[in-house]
Amino acid sequence: MQNFVFENPTRVLFGKGNIARTGREIKCFGKKALLVYGSGSIKKNGVYDQVISSLNESQVPFTELPGVKSNPVLSLVYEGIEKAKGEGADVILAVGGGSVIDTAKAIAAGVMADHDVWEFFNGKKRIQAALPLVTVLTISASASEMNPAAVITNDNTSQKFSTRSMFIQPKVSILDPSTLFTISRQYTAYSAADAITHMLEGYFNNTEPHSPLQDRLVEALMRTVMESTEASLAKPDDYEARANFMWAATLAFNGMTTAGMGAVTYPAHMLGHSLSALYDTPHGASLSITLPAWMAYFSACNPRKFARLAREIFGITDPDDSAAAATGIERLRAWFEKIGTPTSLNSCSIPGSDLPAISANAHGLAQVWGLKDYSPGVIEGIFELCR
Amino acid sequence: MQNFVFENPTRVLFGKGNIARTGREIKCFGKKALLVYGSGSIKKNGVYDQVISSLNESQVPFTELPGVKSNPVLSLVYEGIEKAKGEGADVILAVGGGSVIDTAKAIAAGVMADHDVWEFFNGKKRIQAALPLVTVLTISASASEMNPAAVITNDNTSQKFSTRSMFIQPKVSILDPSTLFTISRQYTAYSAADAITHMLEGYFNNTEPHSPLQDRLVEALMRTVMESTEASLAKPDDYEARANFMWAATLAFNGMTTAGMGAVTYPAHMLGHSLSALYDTPHGASLSITLPAWMAYFSACNPRKFARLAREIFGITDPDDSAAAATGIERLRAWFEKIGTPTSLNSCSIPGSDLPAISANAHGLAQVWGLKDYSPGVIEGIFELCR
Repeated sequence: MQNFVFENPTRVLFGKGNIARTGREIKCFGKKALLVYGSGSIKKNGVYDQVISSLNESQVPFTELPGVKSNPVLSLVYEGIEKAKGEGADVILAVGGGSVIDTAKAIAAGVMADHDVWEFFNGKKRIQAALPLVTVLTISASASEMNPAAVITNDNTSQKFSTRSMFIQPKVSILDPSTLFTISRQYTAYSAADAITHMLEGYFNNTEPHSPLQDRLVEALMRTVMESTEASLAKPDDYEARANFMWAATLAFNGMTTAGMGAVTYPAHMLGHSLSALYDTPHGASLSITLPAWMAYFSACNPRKFARLAREIFGITDPDDSAAAATGIERLRAWFEKIGTPTSLNSCSIPGSDLPAISANAHGLAQVWGLKDYSPGVIEGIFELCR
Repeated sequence: MQNFVFENPTRVLFGKGNIARTGREIKCFGKKALLVYGSGSIKKNGVYDQVISSLNESQVPFTELPGVKSNPVLSLVYEGIEKAKGEGADVILAVGGGSVIDTAKAIAAGVMADHDVWEFFNGKKRIQAALPLVTVLTISASASEMNPAAVITNDNTSQKFSTRSMFIQPKVSILDPSTLFTISRQYTAYSAADAITHMLEGYFNNTEPHSPLQDRLVEALMRTVMESTEASLAKPDDYEARANFMWAATLAFNGMTTAGMGAVTYPAHMLGHSLSALYDTPHGASLSITLPAWMAYFSACNPRKFARLAREIFGITDPDDSAAAATGIERLRAWFEKIGTPTSLNSCSIPGSDLPAISANAHGLAQVWGLKDYSPGVIEGIFELCR
């Protein structure tokens, strides 16, 4: 186990009925809220009304920034920063999934900065302060509700970049599994792909010195994510399934599974971000395409570890590590297909002739993230396996 | 899954070399430290010198309260409160295991109270403030380094009682697995019994609605605790084994495994505390005696869950739940015996004729904890199974 610092101060209020506490929680952190949300699903499923009613009950004034889309964009972050400043909002309330929360995080940091907020994402500046952030989670996958990371796409440059800071980690996150009942089958599947990718990128980082504890935690979470996704697809209002998924997805990327793993790299994310940036491929869908391809490309470097996953998760009994690893990767790909998230560029109508442009975009991010092993040739080699 | 609030703001600095950061961390929280420690093992293994050297390097003045014993006592807490007040200490530094940290927690709360600190333990008062607490962990088991609980024995009344408050949760905890190299075989085994009991008391609370996630997390941690205990006994300076144990024991009782389980009760602790209070039985040893007996007494109420543990942890294949449960309990008892922690009153020379007095003591605590199912008859029935 490598040395690590673990710190996760977000207070999680988990379970049905908790959205009624939103107003009281907001009131602990500010006088006026900027309410950030998406394209309207929270108005259809009643979450918006619950939030507004709680804010009103606690007499919290607020102003609204709707319109966050999947693969959230920098231009809306700019708009939010101006709105927060103009309206004197001193606390941000994000009601949505990872895209909404990440937009809110970027706004929270941007309001306090005297420079372009994008400099926090392209690595030129470090976040030094942010407005406090409270979240009400309605799509579970990113774990952004309990971590210090944010991912934003620069809609001018087609770069999907990320930043991390304890300053933007939510103070309080409200997780009510019943908000997940109305998520589409597609996004239920994309969410599973996202959560699984978060875990496996750490898992395959866990090599020497090898820590059995973190492997077991990931396997425990992954079994739960798979089982609860299948149950949620079978019965979208299965509260227990949604609850198990929701808490597992949070724990999957709140720092716990990677503590002790050293500097974890996120190659499937690096590759997937280029698909989102260039084709607006949904985040989870981009990962179910790139993760199995990345695994196939690199499994020969550590067949034993890839075989462990195959045996623990898919019950594969082949005693040969390489064979077990290959079968495990195929089983993961088949499971993604089964739940309804794509595993090839072709199935998303992304032409093979675009591979050089996709690879160049991904290589740009690999350089920003310092992933030196990922030359343009390696990246294109992996994308060849996604066709 | 039941509704829950999860909040755990302790910052953990994990890994070798981190004790050198003690002074800098202390300096963030106060001007003068009260250094609380035990009966001298930290002077033998070099931890004391590392701490003092770090405090000196950061120019942090301090005063010392040595002498904490296993099953820490109220009289030393009183002494610590007087010392902190008299010397103007405004931050507490605990260097030791659960006994030292719990003493430090009680002092931290007691300094800020205008009444007898014992009232926080007998349920008459709630903690409203405390001095900040930093810990350097040297015996891993209690998870007190990352939770809000403290257990103290009143040496006047022979009551071993507990309290909980976010105010006494450590701000920072430094976990260096190499501090565990010099722990005796006995205490290595007692530590395992303590960590396992923390997990299983929650595990058997997880009934309806049943949450597979928490079961799997407990099983992942329990496998790690057992495996790393055996490796540590075989090679006391096995860093990886000690590291896996150390982090698993912390996660075993930092609130994660019980989040969603509702109001978890701690019956094995309730019963074990009476042995510690009356015979000074080490905490972990008291639990390896009471846990299997408690399991045997109650397994008929939920044979399926007890069978699950037997199958998952001990690989028992008997398809009959009751039979599998019984075998699993025997295997746990045998494992405790194998690693060297007792499983009977007899092996600790506690005479069977004392059972009425032991049961009466335990019943007193059951009443304080509101465990209404534990009548004197039930308690004596369980203790009968520990003879």
